[in-house]
Amino acid sequence: MKKPKIDSPIFFVGVRDNGIISFGSGQPDLPPPRQIFNILPDYRSFKYGLTQGQINLREALAKQYPGAKAENFVITNGASEALDLTIRALSQKFHGGKIMLFRPYYYSYPFLAKISGMTPVISDLKEGRIDLEDFKKKIKGCKAILINSPSNPTGKIESIETLKEIEKITQKLGIYILSDEVYKDLIYERENYLLHGPYVVTINSFSKTYAMCGFRVGYLYARDKELVRAVVEIKARTSMNTGILSQEMAFEATKVPRRQVDSQIKIWRQRRDLIYKGLKDMGFDLWKPEGAFYVFPKIKNANRVVNDLFYKHKVITYDGAWFGNPDRIRLSYALDVKDIKEGLRRIKKYIKGKESWLK
Amino acid sequence: MKKPKIDSPIFFVGVRDNGIISFGSGQPDLPPPRQIFNILPDYRSFKYGLTQGQINLREALAKQYPGAKAENFVITNGASEALDLTIRALSQKFHGGKIMLFRPYYYSYPFLAKISGMTPVISDLKEGRIDLEDFKKKIKGCKAILINSPSNPTGKIESIETLKEIEKITQKLGIYILSDEVYKDLIYERENYLLHGPYVVTINSFSKTYAMCGFRVGYLYARDKELVRAVVEIKARTSMNTGILSQEMAFEATKVPRRQVDSQIKIWRQRRDLIYKGLKDMGFDLWKPEGAFYVFPKIKNANRVVNDLFYKHKVITYDGAWFGNPDRIRLSYALDVKDIKEGLRRIKKYIKGKESWLK
Repeated sequence: MKKPKIDSPIFFVGVRDNGIISFGSGQPDLPPPRQIFNILPDYRSFKYGLTQGQINLREALAKQYPGAKAENFVITNGASEALDLTIRALSQKFHGGKIMLFRPYYYSYPFLAKISGMTPVISDLKEGRIDLEDFKKKIKGCKAILINSPSNPTGKIESIETLKEIEKITQKLGIYILSDEVYKDLIYERENYLLHGPYVVTINSFSKTYAMCGFRVGYLYARDKELVRAVVEIKARTSMNTGILSQEMAFEATKVPRRQVDSQIKIWRQRRDLIYKGLKDMGFDLWKPEGAFYVFPKIKNANRVVNDLFYKHKVITYDGAWFGNPDRIRLSYALDVKDIKEGLRRIKKYIKGKESWLK
Repeated sequence: MKKPKIDSPIFFVGVRDNGIISFGSGQPDLPPPRQIFNILPDYRSFKYGLTQGQINLREALAKQYPGAKAENFVITNGASEALDLTIRALSQKFHGGKIMLFRPYYYSYPFLAKISGMTPVISDLKEGRIDLEDFKKKIKGCKAILINSPSNPTGKIESIETLKEIEKITQKLGIYILSDEVYKDLIYERENYLLHGPYVVTINSFSKTYAMCGFRVGYLYARDKELVRAVVEIKARTSMNTGILSQEMAFEATKVPRRQVDSQIKIWRQRRDLIYKGLKDMGFDLWKPEGAFYVFPKIKNANRVVNDLFYKHKVITYDGAWFGNPDRIRLSYALDVKDIKEGLRRIKKYIKGKESWLK
């Protein structure tokens, strides 16, 4: 049988095999807090919930954001739907318009902009960080800007100075910031800096912090009431309430003590150090992750590497081209130490004799 | 406090008060099959599911459609997302294009078409049924047509002859049929007629048949592999998998014996007869529902009626204008006999002296 060429991350969805080491999908392997399952035995509700989201969940979230109220939140089918709805609402408001994306980007960003009629304006990151000069040159004429710090795929965080500068400039110009902060609780270097202001839409999720990917609970938080209203109006037509039981489980997650969540950062740091050192020792050129759980090493012929590693060595990696950066591959280290070690062994075997590809 | 004018069904979302009789929202009040809750106590999964939907659920659905396979289905966040994704995929394929809608329509249809860049072409129903002459006149140049039988808001079903004629004409012209059959298990007159063919996309849901509205599980079924692929691609970016636990509950629902589902039709018929006769006796001009759970009586000043009934008599009804038909109101009879009777009493009181509005 001819092996189909791997040309999209969607290729790997549903690929399961005991022999495979997957550095692919960005989902935590550590289980969610056990508390979220406690409510299941007695659950009996079944009716439509509020399109905007259950009030108990929104009130709990409001306590996590200074000065926020329940009415500033919309609960969504993961951060993906929060992004999609926000972009649709902005596209409606501005009859299209330009949105700035930083490259490399999470692979869905350009797709989401285009399918809703917005035009991506690309600004290239400089060593994984926003290039303020380029940003300033291109920002005029944009209606929105999409920031993702900590970043998927780079694993880098932006400096607080940069974020504040962007806040200032965009607020003056009335440009929306979509701040995708789904990795905000996975930062190794400092506390998260919450972008804020009248034009900021914070996108977040229970998927990464609480390992609840499959339940699909995300949200957006915005001070702009008109935007929230427009988002709810679209959601009422396109999906209605987010699953009521998933929301109850998310509500239980909000009650989990902070130290229980933070205790996992030790595990992530250990994995990060292991994969970073392992790849470095093989000669890879890569950034040390400051947040999230990805490394993004340079390598020539990245698509061939992704295909070879999968078909010849049963290792899943993602082609940097899917993130707008063709000479790199992305590896998620959301898997246990034993598997990371085995994956590194296989990669080492594969790149033997190909050292020139790492330059 | 000034009472805001009611100008959209979204006004009523979340309105709860013990004294209110709601003929508003279209959700069953009868509980779901108890079997769907049985799996909850032991449920422990948490990872991403397949974007296309759990394989067990799709295989179970495939058995319900002659000649279907699991690969022909996509599980979605309710029928709403199934419709939205299908329209987005068609708009992508045809770079916009025209879609025929029949008026009165479910209130989200024109919105869904427009927000994804398709242009609605309206064909008016004749006494609640498709006017084949008008259909034939307008169908050329359309890329798709959206049929909803049994219909929300009319409660009517199309004749099988009409449906077959439409099947024949659209297939010859290569025009897609989006067949929204969410009320297929609530027909009082005959078995459902499943529209079928290479360009048919069947939209369905667990919300009405199994009273699972809040869990948001719907699906689309299509023979067109390219269209299914395009829908999955969009869903992978905009919401990813439908909630995994909701899907498991839906899978349990597929195992519920048919007679358990059918046993509810008796209850629905009793309610239909009650509300139909009640309104008829008051002098309303309305169609006798053949499916679903709505009546759509004529009344002048419908928006004033909706506002008066809510603010003065605590009765929720929907303005026909929201469905494209300003001189009617929609009443859902998804509530128990006692409440239907009380609601009818209040309506009778209200229309006393306004008999001329019913002509």
